[in-house]
Amino acid sequence: MSICDVSDGLISVPQATEIILNNIEDFGVEEIPFIQSVHRVLKENILADRDFPPFNRVSMDGIAIAFTEFEKGRKQFKIEGIQPAGTPQITVRNPENCVEVMTGAILPKGVDIVIPYELINIDNGIATLQTEAIKFFQNVHKKGKDRKQNEIILRENTRISPAEIGVLATVGKAKVKVAKNPRVLIVSTGDELVEVNQNPLSHQIRRSNVYTLVSLLEKLKIETKTIHINDDKENLRKTIKNLLQDYDVLLFSGAVSKGKFDFIPDVLADLGVQKLFHRVSQRPGKPFWFGKKERKTIFAFPGNPVSTFVSCLRYFYPWFYKSVGLEYENKHFAVLDSDYVFKSDLTYFLQVKLTNKNGTIYATPITGHGSGDLANLVDVDAFLELPKGQNLYPKGSIYKYIKFR
Amino acid sequence: MSICDVSDGLISVPQATEIILNNIEDFGVEEIPFIQSVHRVLKENILADRDFPPFNRVSMDGIAIAFTEFEKGRKQFKIEGIQPAGTPQITVRNPENCVEVMTGAILPKGVDIVIPYELINIDNGIATLQTEAIKFFQNVHKKGKDRKQNEIILRENTRISPAEIGVLATVGKAKVKVAKNPRVLIVSTGDELVEVNQNPLSHQIRRSNVYTLVSLLEKLKIETKTIHINDDKENLRKTIKNLLQDYDVLLFSGAVSKGKFDFIPDVLADLGVQKLFHRVSQRPGKPFWFGKKERKTIFAFPGNPVSTFVSCLRYFYPWFYKSVGLEYENKHFAVLDSDYVFKSDLTYFLQVKLTNKNGTIYATPITGHGSGDLANLVDVDAFLELPKGQNLYPKGSIYKYIKFR
Repeated sequence: MSICDVSDGLISVPQATEIILNNIEDFGVEEIPFIQSVHRVLKENILADRDFPPFNRVSMDGIAIAFTEFEKGRKQFKIEGIQPAGTPQITVRNPENCVEVMTGAILPKGVDIVIPYELINIDNGIATLQTEAIKFFQNVHKKGKDRKQNEIILRENTRISPAEIGVLATVGKAKVKVAKNPRVLIVSTGDELVEVNQNPLSHQIRRSNVYTLVSLLEKLKIETKTIHINDDKENLRKTIKNLLQDYDVLLFSGAVSKGKFDFIPDVLADLGVQKLFHRVSQRPGKPFWFGKKERKTIFAFPGNPVSTFVSCLRYFYPWFYKSVGLEYENKHFAVLDSDYVFKSDLTYFLQVKLTNKNGTIYATPITGHGSGDLANLVDVDAFLELPKGQNLYPKGSIYKYIKFR
Repeated sequence: MSICDVSDGLISVPQATEIILNNIEDFGVEEIPFIQSVHRVLKENILADRDFPPFNRVSMDGIAIAFTEFEKGRKQFKIEGIQPAGTPQITVRNPENCVEVMTGAILPKGVDIVIPYELINIDNGIATLQTEAIKFFQNVHKKGKDRKQNEIILRENTRISPAEIGVLATVGKAKVKVAKNPRVLIVSTGDELVEVNQNPLSHQIRRSNVYTLVSLLEKLKIETKTIHINDDKENLRKTIKNLLQDYDVLLFSGAVSKGKFDFIPDVLADLGVQKLFHRVSQRPGKPFWFGKKERKTIFAFPGNPVSTFVSCLRYFYPWFYKSVGLEYENKHFAVLDSDYVFKSDLTYFLQVKLTNKNGTIYATPITGHGSGDLANLVDVDAFLELPKGQNLYPKGSIYKYIKFR
């Protein structure tokens, strides 16, 4: 083994990002019940099935009258009938009369303005106006004002939020086409790991990274499975060979560094997975390995808990966003609120607490005990990405952040 | 019916908020598998089950040597053995020797510093140091450095994120106590409504508000049920009477305004539900009704889609947050990026698009066609809360926002 230069084989964070974003995959489209589609990505344009609103819709409770009668100076209107919401349109027989109308009702034929109850007085079946300020079509939400029939109302590649759920319901899209998610398997290795419900011996620890990854992917609405493989090269080879058949994405945690049992890069090479990079000039997460075999994508994150955590957010998330058709560029910036010194020539993912002061986001460094301290993240909101190439990151300077809560 | 003063019965948005926050409920605690607990609220303190790390943990792959030997000037160390991760601690027999150690391994007895492979040269079983810069205990994550055994590592009332999932796994909390969610029923009324998979007649529309509410509550991890009740007073009375037995919270949408068929306030009064307020000086959502019967809580939102949407975010969310023990004060501020005129003496929930420019959040008004236009929300990120009492909201002024995507 020879002495390694620190920069040996390292690529920069922007280079790693570019490679990952050039290696996205399309997982196709599936149709699901609209009510299950929150947070999924729409894969069809949604058209207005009719005008929005579909009829001249009354928007206040009150009476409806003919504007021409008001213009003639009429103040008193006999109540001729009532138009509740959800009933077929009635017609006013005598234009000098009025109709009581309810919010959400279709505007009756023969009338065109609505005066709310607050501005009238009703006595003995006669409504008397208490206002002079009347405009044509007031308190009527006119047919087609918001959207015309067949107009696009939701665009493909929109991430569905509760607002879109309401629109989908309105136009009758009981089922909706969304981006299919990749089949993802999360793989832990490392003979020091025992299950969460087991008591570790003094040299052992519990398996935690896979569960962190499960919940990080759950935030993306991706259901995952997990598996543990012991640090046995032949066993790893056989098992991973089968997994490459069954899954679109494998996420590894651990066994990618320079240790004697860090078999993952070798095993993946044996299995014909093309290494696209190994080792990124970043802290934490330097030994990050990324590769592809045909349409299968492999993210092998370093086993240190915070490395796995930040690498998933920084690389898997944008890869997934771009794959399903979403915006993937991070446009979240925060102002560093104290000087920070970091001397290694690496991009540093600084753990920070975010505070909104008068509309500006400030990032306060929360100093932990090194990248292995997952417990430190409990007091942290986000990682601030300090680009490599400087020693001092001055107070007041602006960097991108990745929020995880 | 008499003429109503515009301010009749209206309370302000801050008053409504105060009443709602004074009427929270405790729904108790349940124990669930930790992996299902993301976004739930922790209801126990979590202690470190042992020191964090539980042993002197090697944090780089390389060799471990005794610092005293280095101080004596020794540069060459015979490799005596290997300490992989997950194996019981070995002991160095001869202090002049070294041991190969792997990241995550327990540090062997008799050695106290780790030199990474990058800074040594190995030839014929002898490791030669290529560095002078060595510090005591370097590259060893010392036992108990992050947390001591029995120290509190997660506090009660923390909202669980993927970071907390990792910590729960690490300390072996396979099951965890979280705040129980209320049993919530979402009720639509209105005879104009048909189901999403039905074709409405010309005077009908599809049921959408209940689904918007379902997905808004899903974001809080609250599972809900929905029901539709026709605008028949006796039927409403009988049905709601039973529902008050079975649920902790009823969310209504519609039938709370001044229309002839807006029976909800009367029916709730008949059933002994105490009205805490009706009508709030806000747009949209003025006819919002809120009340309690013993430990049951009733939010009756106006039926207009955007009114229901913003009222749920502005009132139900904080009520729920405080009920389960979370921070409920909105600390999100944005800078209005153009003048905005709004002349009614009401708090206005302005629909805005948010942009982060150099760390500052700017809010751009997205003008819709009135509060009924749910489709407008598709282009909107948030509501900016413009307090009542002014006509002009100047560019550059700062207001709270409520983000929904």
